[in-house]
Amino acid sequence: MKKTRVLTGITTSGTPHLGNYVGAIRPAIEDSRKENVESFFFLADYHSIIKTRDPIRVHQSTREIAATWLALGLDVDRVTFYRQSDIPEITELCWILNCMTAKGLMNRAHAYKAAVQQNIDDEEADPDKGITMGLFSYPVLMAADILMFNAHKVPVGRDQIQHLEMARDIAARMNHHYKVKFALPEAVVDENTAVLNGLDGRKMSKSYDNVIPLFAPEKKLRKLIMKIKTNCLEPGEPKDPDTCTLFQIFSAFAAPSEIEEKRQQYYNGAGWGELKQTLFEYLNEQLQGPRERYDALMEDPQYVETILKAGAEKARAEAKPFLQKIRHGIGIRPIE
Amino acid sequence: MKKTRVLTGITTSGTPHLGNYVGAIRPAIEDSRKENVESFFFLADYHSIIKTRDPIRVHQSTREIAATWLALGLDVDRVTFYRQSDIPEITELCWILNCMTAKGLMNRAHAYKAAVQQNIDDEEADPDKGITMGLFSYPVLMAADILMFNAHKVPVGRDQIQHLEMARDIAARMNHHYKVKFALPEAVVDENTAVLNGLDGRKMSKSYDNVIPLFAPEKKLRKLIMKIKTNCLEPGEPKDPDTCTLFQIFSAFAAPSEIEEKRQQYYNGAGWGELKQTLFEYLNEQLQGPRERYDALMEDPQYVETILKAGAEKARAEAKPFLQKIRHGIGIRPIE
Repeated sequence: MKKTRVLTGITTSGTPHLGNYVGAIRPAIEDSRKENVESFFFLADYHSIIKTRDPIRVHQSTREIAATWLALGLDVDRVTFYRQSDIPEITELCWILNCMTAKGLMNRAHAYKAAVQQNIDDEEADPDKGITMGLFSYPVLMAADILMFNAHKVPVGRDQIQHLEMARDIAARMNHHYKVKFALPEAVVDENTAVLNGLDGRKMSKSYDNVIPLFAPEKKLRKLIMKIKTNCLEPGEPKDPDTCTLFQIFSAFAAPSEIEEKRQQYYNGAGWGELKQTLFEYLNEQLQGPRERYDALMEDPQYVETILKAGAEKARAEAKPFLQKIRHGIGIRPIE
Repeated sequence: MKKTRVLTGITTSGTPHLGNYVGAIRPAIEDSRKENVESFFFLADYHSIIKTRDPIRVHQSTREIAATWLALGLDVDRVTFYRQSDIPEITELCWILNCMTAKGLMNRAHAYKAAVQQNIDDEEADPDKGITMGLFSYPVLMAADILMFNAHKVPVGRDQIQHLEMARDIAARMNHHYKVKFALPEAVVDENTAVLNGLDGRKMSKSYDNVIPLFAPEKKLRKLIMKIKTNCLEPGEPKDPDTCTLFQIFSAFAAPSEIEEKRQQYYNGAGWGELKQTLFEYLNEQLQGPRERYDALMEDPQYVETILKAGAEKARAEAKPFLQKIRHGIGIRPIE
């Protein structure tokens, strides 16, 4: 039976938070355990430099994200787990794909168009103001990430479907013009994935500065949960669980029977202080084990580096010979 | 004394012709022999795939151009002579520079603007029709070629001055934002370099299909020289050497006293047939030695490949540690 190859990239520009865990990390790790799935996970550090010019943040985030995935039980013997910048074949392929990518395709990319629209809304004279070639051409790097390993499926958010179609389009052109055979990747959008709200009730997101870091130390976790916005209902008054961020976060972690029990506490008029405290205790218990592993991994960067180097070797064992084939196809060949 | 580092790239999409030799190859080789100059020459195969999607042409051209430079006496012990695609650090640096390059800068690049203008003139609905990301972003790859080796001077044609300024601009931004130290490259435009005309009297250029290959076999060389366009003056009638392609080509090879003698033949009314025959004999004698070496090199691709591999090793001995520094500067670092 041929396995389905699934590729996931994680941009190394932030610290993983509860929303990342529930919406992306947890389902991806679960998926990677399936019999018929062959998973590739990579730390997208060459994407992160599009977003941030802070070297410390890029470095720190790479360390945190690697430790997070390992702490949560990613099985590196089973999957291929690597850092993008350890695979120089990817940026080389990116240039090759550039030469087969219509500029017009990039003109229509959502991320670029959104940045242009922002400039227009701000009445900037130059609609390209502040837009780098990195932002403009990142769908090509993304295509290289995917095509380098002939991934079949790429789990993405709705906003990335278009970029996947671009990768498909570029692959099809390469296959048509040259004697190469790229697999045509497909986007996978999981409609059922939970989206968590943050401290202020909006979607939990670094850009809203409303996140709860997944492995915040116990005290910090409690403090943040206490800050979650609720309404003004007093203890004793019945509360609506379905519009409550506390309840939503609890539900993302708890079993159905526990959720039902919690729901009753809302109807019975539990106070916000009590509800926050019980959420904290519940989360803290669930996260304690992984957090201990995370802290240990953060204390042992050399071990994490070894894991990443081994992953890079595994990935390059594929990337190197495949790039040689691609190079041959376009005419980049030894002279003899 | 610190040497001036001079970098020259040759796009591998054609066969070297007399115009290339006189206008670029000969002066570059002469320059490389200067005491205070440290020369880098590279076969720009990753630029050639912007221009052609014919793998055979890319491969054949790489072979011909490498053999040409070696046949003409390029001293590979003295210079660094390599194939761009043997240095993966260059495409990796290209991506890094992308993230520091304003898209607006590329919007203003001459080569791109000329392609857009052509579409507008052709009344195409899409001004970007047929333009690839390769064409659009090639000044960034060119910047990577130059900055990778901290070249001080880059001999270019007038049309490339702007791209050199872009490389300078990108280098300055990198130096400003990150703890890296790129040399700021300068364009060198040699106003005295001879421009040869081709068979039809226009500038000798592959795109006009009017070229005389530098190492055309003897018979072919004679045949092509016989095809050079002249006017209708009969033998015996005095002729103007200064508007004559034959004379121009002769002058590019001959010593001043020989040129003076030839000039007299024109004034004395030598016939076109005779002038063509003497030009052929003169050129043939001059090119015979290098052509024999060229033919031998074309017969020994393995030797040429060995030379290029050795050049790549020499180039990478610089590129690798320098890229490590750049990576460190932007935050791409080992975790430990």
